[in-house]
Amino acid sequence: MNLVPVAIAGATGYSGEELIRLLMRHPEIELVCVTSRGNAGARLGEVFPKFEGEKYAGLNFSASETEAIAASGAKIAFLALPHGAAAPFAQALLAAGVRVIDLSADFRLKDAEVYREYYGHEHPAPELLEKSVYGIPELYRAELRTALLTASAGCYPTSVIVPLHPLLKRGLIDPASIVVASMSGVSGAGRNVAAEYLYAECNENARPYGVPKHRHVAEIEQELSVAAGERVMINFTPHLIPVTRGILSTTFAMPRAGVAPEAINEALEAAYGEETFIRLRGEKETVELKNVAYTNFLDIAWRHDPRTGRLILMSAEDNLVKGAAGQAVQNMNVMCGWAEATGL
Amino acid sequence: MNLVPVAIAGATGYSGEELIRLLMRHPEIELVCVTSRGNAGARLGEVFPKFEGEKYAGLNFSASETEAIAASGAKIAFLALPHGAAAPFAQALLAAGVRVIDLSADFRLKDAEVYREYYGHEHPAPELLEKSVYGIPELYRAELRTALLTASAGCYPTSVIVPLHPLLKRGLIDPASIVVASMSGVSGAGRNVAAEYLYAECNENARPYGVPKHRHVAEIEQELSVAAGERVMINFTPHLIPVTRGILSTTFAMPRAGVAPEAINEALEAAYGEETFIRLRGEKETVELKNVAYTNFLDIAWRHDPRTGRLILMSAEDNLVKGAAGQAVQNMNVMCGWAEATGL
Amino acid sequence: MNLVPVAIAGATGYSGEELIRLLMRHPEIELVCVTSRGNAGARLGEVFPKFEGEKYAGLNFSASETEAIAASGAKIAFLALPHGAAAPFAQALLAAGVRVIDLSADFRLKDAEVYREYYGHEHPAPELLEKSVYGIPELYRAELRTALLTASAGCYPTSVIVPLHPLLKRGLIDPASIVVASMSGVSGAGRNVAAEYLYAECNENARPYGVPKHRHVAEIEQELSVAAGERVMINFTPHLIPVTRGILSTTFAMPRAGVAPEAINEALEAAYGEETFIRLRGEKETVELKNVAYTNFLDIAWRHDPRTGRLILMSAEDNLVKGAAGQAVQNMNVMCGWAEATGL
Amino acid sequence: MNLVPVAIAGATGYSGEELIRLLMRHPEIELVCVTSRGNAGARLGEVFPKFEGEKYAGLNFSASETEAIAASGAKIAFLALPHGAAAPFAQALLAAGVRVIDLSADFRLKDAEVYREYYGHEHPAPELLEKSVYGIPELYRAELRTALLTASAGCYPTSVIVPLHPLLKRGLIDPASIVVASMSGVSGAGRNVAAEYLYAECNENARPYGVPKHRHVAEIEQELSVAAGERVMINFTPHLIPVTRGILSTTFAMPRAGVAPEAINEALEAAYGEETFIRLRGEKETVELKNVAYTNFLDIAWRHDPRTGRLILMSAEDNLVKGAAGQAVQNMNVMCGWAEATGL
Repeated sequence: MNLVPVAIAGATGYSGEELIRLLMRHPEIELVCVTSRGNAGARLGEVFPKFEGEKYAGLNFSASETEAIAASGAKIAFLALPHGAAAPFAQALLAAGVRVIDLSADFRLKDAEVYREYYGHEHPAPELLEKSVYGIPELYRAELRTALLTASAGCYPTSVIVPLHPLLKRGLIDPASIVVASMSGVSGAGRNVAAEYLYAECNENARPYGVPKHRHVAEIEQELSVAAGERVMINFTPHLIPVTRGILSTTFAMPRAGVAPEAINEALEAAYGEETFIRLRGEKETVELKNVAYTNFLDIAWRHDPRTGRLILMSAEDNLVKGAAGQAVQNMNVMCGWAEATGL
Repeated sequence: MNLVPVAIAGATGYSGEELIRLLMRHPEIELVCVTSRGNAGARLGEVFPKFEGEKYAGLNFSASETEAIAASGAKIAFLALPHGAAAPFAQALLAAGVRVIDLSADFRLKDAEVYREYYGHEHPAPELLEKSVYGIPELYRAELRTALLTASAGCYPTSVIVPLHPLLKRGLIDPASIVVASMSGVSGAGRNVAAEYLYAECNENARPYGVPKHRHVAEIEQELSVAAGERVMINFTPHLIPVTRGILSTTFAMPRAGVAPEAINEALEAAYGEETFIRLRGEKETVELKNVAYTNFLDIAWRHDPRTGRLILMSAEDNLVKGAAGQAVQNMNVMCGWAEATGL
Repeated sequence: MNLVPVAIAGATGYSGEELIRLLMRHPEIELVCVTSRGNAGARLGEVFPKFEGEKYAGLNFSASETEAIAASGAKIAFLALPHGAAAPFAQALLAAGVRVIDLSADFRLKDAEVYREYYGHEHPAPELLEKSVYGIPELYRAELRTALLTASAGCYPTSVIVPLHPLLKRGLIDPASIVVASMSGVSGAGRNVAAEYLYAECNENARPYGVPKHRHVAEIEQELSVAAGERVMINFTPHLIPVTRGILSTTFAMPRAGVAPEAINEALEAAYGEETFIRLRGEKETVELKNVAYTNFLDIAWRHDPRTGRLILMSAEDNLVKGAAGQAVQNMNVMCGWAEATGL
Repeated sequence: MNLVPVAIAGATGYSGEELIRLLMRHPEIELVCVTSRGNAGARLGEVFPKFEGEKYAGLNFSASETEAIAASGAKIAFLALPHGAAAPFAQALLAAGVRVIDLSADFRLKDAEVYREYYGHEHPAPELLEKSVYGIPELYRAELRTALLTASAGCYPTSVIVPLHPLLKRGLIDPASIVVASMSGVSGAGRNVAAEYLYAECNENARPYGVPKHRHVAEIEQELSVAAGERVMINFTPHLIPVTRGILSTTFAMPRAGVAPEAINEALEAAYGEETFIRLRGEKETVELKNVAYTNFLDIAWRHDPRTGRLILMSAEDNLVKGAAGQAVQNMNVMCGWAEATGL
């Protein structure tokens, strides 16, 4: 069997670490290169004692340079780099013929203006924006098959876009009525050594943040607007809660006049009923972080409130799997024509 | 100094336990009676090893009977009993001349019909409903001064009603636009020995529940309707998160046409700027559970989103203090004419 | 490929749940039967929403009766039943020609007298005690190959016995000097619906328990005595700490006179240097629960204190994997002649 | 009433924060000065939003200079500074006539040689070592009454020294047999912004550290040696566990030949039976972090194991209260002749 050589740039963040965990068990690839600014030269098993004794423990970290990745023979590179740092990597790697799956936000926004508005600086590689494919396989499977540059969707956007997409596409809900409250585990902040993410600050605590204009709003609205065929603006309030892994999103929206609750069911079933990684929990079950932890599932439940008329959508995923590394692997599987659940 | 004799009925639940903790340090009262169905006869310090060595450790639990409370000479009785069990206690104690502060939901709803709708059975003491005062001192201080029966408001309602009340009263927001996502610590479920509240089920987990019609909606809507002067119906979605203590509520509402953001500030400042236990965090600061843990504070912050026009209100409190035992003590302080922060 | 049909009796406890998770990915077996007293008739995916969409989600629980297991055609049965309940299952299944891997304590003690001392009643199937093999593959691999009844070792004993075994066998440490402090996650108590295991009781808490004579002492001493060739008695103090998964054991022992620290290294390396699931972390690294979570690894580090002369052994494992379900699967792999890491 | 003016140097660490919380309610003092290197000029309520609305919220932080403290008129200064930084403060403040209660390790060791061995540099103020009093009131109450410089004992040492002290003093246990396993909450590491203390690294984790020669061993052995009247060397292994607050220590020791278990009881009762903050839990009860959280209690339980002959001592305290700020306040109360529980 010919294994496809794969690289991870920036493999020491939480997304990179989770990519390693998943790729260790992936039967179609061989991990040939991991890079790190701070750990170049070190063995993977040394940097991550938990991977000692596992398949790639003996691999040495390269410095985070595109030359190292290209020289490794990698055909696919995952970029688990900070926002802004990924773009130049993508440029160089694409030029070297390496397909790129970017886990940062660099290529998720199609409009360089919006990027500047939300990220505060010019987009570093605007010429690539239109070539990139937004990496949610359930929405862009066809485009992903031949994508050279995939902007793998992140944790909050996946949890919010997926449930709303088919409802907006069918015109079942009023786009102006959407309000989202999300809760994220602390690993969502990355291995970010800041006082606010210390154990003694996060434990027995919870707080909203990024109100009212969190960066991910741009990405969420972009995809919801595509679905709706019109400009959608929402309220999205994220909260930090004391779990390591997981995103829970509760979305409120008003169905358009005359839309029966059954139409919601039908739209979700039609869109996702056959999907491997979307579990529709319907109108009686709930969603819980513990049901999706360490899996690539996105669970969705919903309720119609006859009193107010509103629809409540509830979704849960593991922010490091379906919200990051797992989705990236799922994207790779689609890009390479492998069964979508391979290694997941 | 003449200490007022006080009793707690049902002192072994989490609210009762927290009442004991607070009353130990209250300079105006003497705890003369604690009751418990399961621990009658036992020493308080034995049932709660954490209170051993403290002021009331030597007190013995009585059986949970109104006779025991009346015989103790108590002038005020806190009822920390399950919903439904409190009403007959209130009847008997009031008849015996004891003022009652009920921490259950039994007397919070003014309408026996609504009670039946949400609780599934006839109200056990409907004649007392109109005599009871809803126990949020910041809203009902005058009525509380002479109240014989106080229905001390609970954790979710306090966190939702307080921020919205002055805005609805002034007609600043559209009552039909209110959507609330709340997060509660697990002590909010009480010392309820059920599989779903086991450590290994709640840790590293989070989930919505009681969607779309949680019991507390009735109580919240009742008070919001009073404030608005019209029937208000909202969406309220509670979530269980893995902390022991704390309630965080994020509320979305649409200001009425022509309402300037400054009017929100003014309304909140006018209503609560002088309150001891309401901390207005304004439009720049945030609220966090850690800032209110083990205190009687309710923190409120807010933001106006110019993109969607919505107002986002964020509130935090300790569910066992301002959301239960602390508010009950604050109610007592008002009822007895003591400084409102006494013992808090 | 001929898959071996496998059953799990008592599949709704935490060990059973973890067995399902592991067996879903095991390439040599087919899960044909899961039993449950409380959930007979229910679909596996319904009882465990987290397994919905996975391989065996459609399997229906049978009542917990040996007939159901035998009728399923299972050739191997895992017993994830409470202590005491497993023995009659083992008797009946062995009689029906089914190989048994028991995760309870029923067959771990070789001496029915010791069983009575620690469990307070007569052993229910003493005739099977000498036929059972103690299920730590690293110590009893040869015997396990042909075992009909394997008493899969539990969480505390595995973490304590494995590091000490080679040192006692070589006579390097004084058996009378052994003192162990262990910390366990709350899932170690099983899905035990008792007040002491509620979230609000375990969170922000830690406590020793079972002092000085925890049940597992009997099993630990039995195996240490075999290793030492003499009667070993130890002090073992377990503690409950607020994590869901994991066992951490810190063991103190005095080397015999004249034993050089290098001899400790040599003994551990000779015993476990080639083992797949034992990771020797040596004298510089440490052990942490996070390195073994969701894996079948047992990590061991050690230090010699030249000041007191004592040896400190530190070991970590996931109590549900190497301490329960993972070890049971590893035992099965040995019993069936498969590669020992299959499915792990 | 004449309030004693008090200062806190280094008031933004966890011990300083806890001191503020306790001193807010202390009836005999007035907090007149808080210092901080990083927050000079800022309001206390701004730096600690949780203290907004409390007594000293309006106090402004001074730069951390001794002149500021002396100029504030403070008669007592708490030093909540890093190890090494406290000594020069103590020198200057004592020279200015301010009594000093140091929460760092700078003056806990009486021997400058031992200090150099454990801290790697010369002691910065060796002339003060013999003047300082070791700050555990239960052991040094008489000396504390007139102390000018109190080296308030820290969290691990308090939890280990207090239970062992009377047993060593009476010669009941063999000093060479002492082995301690301790568990600490993460606040014990201070507000130390390092990757290892991030929430996602500490949650669902536990690990030993500082093995075999943690810095606090020097201090523990010093006090145990004083008690025993001979040089005592112990094994002490601390572990980090995922709680914010709390220290749990389990100590194993061998009684000397002929010592009856009752003698242990007697010694502990004689030493601590009348102490306000030591709760003797005896041979049947246990100790738990939840019983001491947010209190100044140190709980001690013990067991004799007739099988091995060993004594097991278990102790629990809140590391930020009895292990830091609470003990410092208790020391102040003794130094000032106030009731020892004032403000605690």
